[in-house]
Amino acid sequence: MGLLSRFFSKDKALLSSLNNMLGFYPSNINLYKSALRHRSAATEIKNGIKNSNERLEYLGDAILGAVVADYVFKKFPYKEEGFLTEMRSKIVSRESNNKLCRKLGLDALIQNNPDNSPNKSMHGDAFEALIGAIYLDKGYRVCRRFIIGRIIQHHLDIDTLENTETNFKSRLIEWAQRERKAFAFELAEESENGNRRLISIHAMVDGEVLGTGQDYSKKKAEQIAALDACKKLGIL
Amino acid sequence: MGLLSRFFSKDKALLSSLNNMLGFYPSNINLYKSALRHRSAATEIKNGIKNSNERLEYLGDAILGAVVADYVFKKFPYKEEGFLTEMRSKIVSRESNNKLCRKLGLDALIQNNPDNSPNKSMHGDAFEALIGAIYLDKGYRVCRRFIIGRIIQHHLDIDTLENTETNFKSRLIEWAQRERKAFAFELAEESENGNRRLISIHAMVDGEVLGTGQDYSKKKAEQIAALDACKKLGIL
Repeated sequence: MGLLSRFFSKDKALLSSLNNMLGFYPSNINLYKSALRHRSAATEIKNGIKNSNERLEYLGDAILGAVVADYVFKKFPYKEEGFLTEMRSKIVSRESNNKLCRKLGLDALIQNNPDNSPNKSMHGDAFEALIGAIYLDKGYRVCRRFIIGRIIQHHLDIDTLENTETNFKSRLIEWAQRERKAFAFELAEESENGNRRLISIHAMVDGEVLGTGQDYSKKKAEQIAALDACKKLGIL
Repeated sequence: MGLLSRFFSKDKALLSSLNNMLGFYPSNINLYKSALRHRSAATEIKNGIKNSNERLEYLGDAILGAVVADYVFKKFPYKEEGFLTEMRSKIVSRESNNKLCRKLGLDALIQNNPDNSPNKSMHGDAFEALIGAIYLDKGYRVCRRFIIGRIIQHHLDIDTLENTETNFKSRLIEWAQRERKAFAFELAEESENGNRRLISIHAMVDGEVLGTGQDYSKKKAEQIAALDACKKLGIL
């Protein structure tokens, strides 16, 4: 087989894998190649900028956030902003993105240098970069359809997620113990809202307000405050 | 004038203001009314859920993030992810959203209870909620065109923003002084990348890594690390 036909047959195999995974044929295969290129396998293109998947990951992260916000907004018409934020964090997390990458079989397509890529989030990053590539290649609507139809509805169980306490509270408490920080919840405010009491809770780390949560249930308000603090600490 | 015609003439005035502001007529005026309703003027609709703009603000924030990510991704094809993150933070911040609300004249349309709405971000929140309303009413493409064509290109000067150091470093240092925290930058890593040295910097608060930045320039890497830390502290 000549060099040229080998080159094309490699592309053909990738196109076919992607078609199975995505439900459509990519138009611009180079976008997907970039999405699958971990920085350990990247080469320089200009001024020290490498052709790794990091820019696409940045874009994909934002697009994924928008689509999932749209999804939870419509799925839960009678839930408040705090709940929507929490649901989105359960759907889109480093852990969840890593898993989704493997469920899709995307991990097998990643180009990396095995000697030089010890990275906890390599799989999740490639998943986000794939979303970025789909968005650029096919536009928002197709990308949204892929995320909702092929990812959320196929690989995630929203009802289970809704009822699972991703326990931000215990995650925060573990962190505080490890880092030898004082941690406590404080009641910030209670207000009457019709016939119900709305409770505001502060998550305090070393005496400083790090997170805030509001809900009609104290337990729920604590979870939201803990989630807020976890986000600020980057430990989601 | 009867009650009914007064009701419609009020809607008509709002429709006309929005048409001037947006460049199109809203299809579902109720979305925009919700976007303009501060929680101090909201009433309960179900199970303690109020018809304030908070859910739309949540949605709009995510959509705005996606559109601006797309914009900076394409505007700066040879910049790395850290730079794109920084540019987006300059374009979309609480301060900037508050200003944009007033530049659009949206602040005059907000429904609030003046006795009960002392809120630093009321204007910016309404701006984000407006983006959420446009997205639901007209879809992503129209919303994107509005954000890029009417907001970014009309009200923001990207070249100036690019060259302005939004000084995350000094913002972080001020915060640390106010909160009596020890603050320092630390060199985390230097690595050869072709013929250039890539520098990783940690922003340390009380001896703990709170932010990380990478760039070929030390000053730039410090800015990115400071931005990262500011985000985690919620002081952007």
